Amino acid sequence: MSRQSSRATDPRKVSQELFTLTYGALVAQLVKDYESDEEVNKQLDKMGYNIGVRLVEDFLARSGVGRCHDFRETADVIAKTAFRMFLGITPTISNWSAAGDEFSLVMEQNPLTDFVELPEEHGQLNFSNILCGVIRGSLETVQMDVNVRFVQDILKGDNQTEIRVKFIKRLEDALPAGEE
Amino acid sequence: MSRQSSRATDPRKVSQELFTLTYGALVAQLVKDYESDEEVNKQLDKMGYNIGVRLVEDFLARSGVGRCHDFRETADVIAKTAFRMFLGITPTISNWSAAGDEFSLVMEQNPLTDFVELPEEHGQLNFSNILCGVIRGSLETVQMDVNVRFVQDILKGDNQTEIRVKFIKRLEDALPAGEE
Repeated sequence: MSRQSSRATDPRKVSQELFTLTYGALVAQLVKDYESDEEVNKQLDKMGYNIGVRLVEDFLARSGVGRCHDFRETADVIAKTAFRMFLGITPTISNWSAAGDEFSLVMEQNPLTDFVELPEEHGQLNFSNILCGVIRGSLETVQMDVNVRFVQDILKGDNQTEIRVKFIKRLEDALPAGEE
Repeated sequence: MSRQSSRATDPRKVSQELFTLTYGALVAQLVKDYESDEEVNKQLDKMGYNIGVRLVEDFLARSGVGRCHDFRETADVIAKTAFRMFLGITPTISNWSAAGDEFSLVMEQNPLTDFVELPEEHGQLNFSNILCGVIRGSLETVQMDVNVRFVQDILKGDNQTEIRVKFIKRLEDALPAGEE
């Protein structure tokens, strides 16, 4: 029983408010379920990973993006194509490491945290941590092992929200992700 | 610390896929957390109620919709304006009761259930039950007490998905929802 009819040809959208409130309900439920913020962060990352693995296929089909030639191109595709397509925002790419293996996605606005205030007792919660998992899961699916983490968060009083993406290695033994 | 800047003037959208997968993660978490499908349905309805209470304000501001003169107008606003604005679909209104106090929202496609297959052991799960809560919460905020429930669901093998909305009473003693 599959409900995928017309999905590929119909890039439908839903309202950001509905998404944000639904995501907020998810985080609230996890906060209820788990003892520590660290554990909630881990769960969000894991959920994001599973979502990333699912989204990437759809993304490649819809965007027409092919294999990236270097990590700079990967950064561009994530910020300018993927974030825009899925979240309706385009983060700025910045803070490249000298070796070119690490960059930041900087957001002045984060659709996931509209309406949100972080209670003081959850100072370690990375509310939007699902995004790290989504990036990690989707890149792993195209044979790229990366480390993704929040280094700044407006919710925690920082001026901007910054996600750091670090290239670890190319996954050579993985199953092919599909035809090109 | 409020992140609501520019929200009212910027009706941003996110991708349906991302929303659907995020909602799926929420339902999966609740299924893990609660003993029975009935309990999960109840939690989804409660979460939806809270979301509806938040969304309705935004909806009234953005849609310019005023007070409805009768329940038929309410049905129209829900199906043709609210569902379209938030979920990108327009359910068909049908099966009016003779008394005009009850109608159905019929959906041939349900964005919440893309990618979803209901495991056999969850035959009582109303996967999209959050929608009932959203309708209930938003209508209660405009002083209308309604009963909302799924009567058909494509996920359960029905030909279409049908939500039944029944008017119970006008809530006279509630605080005013705001200026008109």
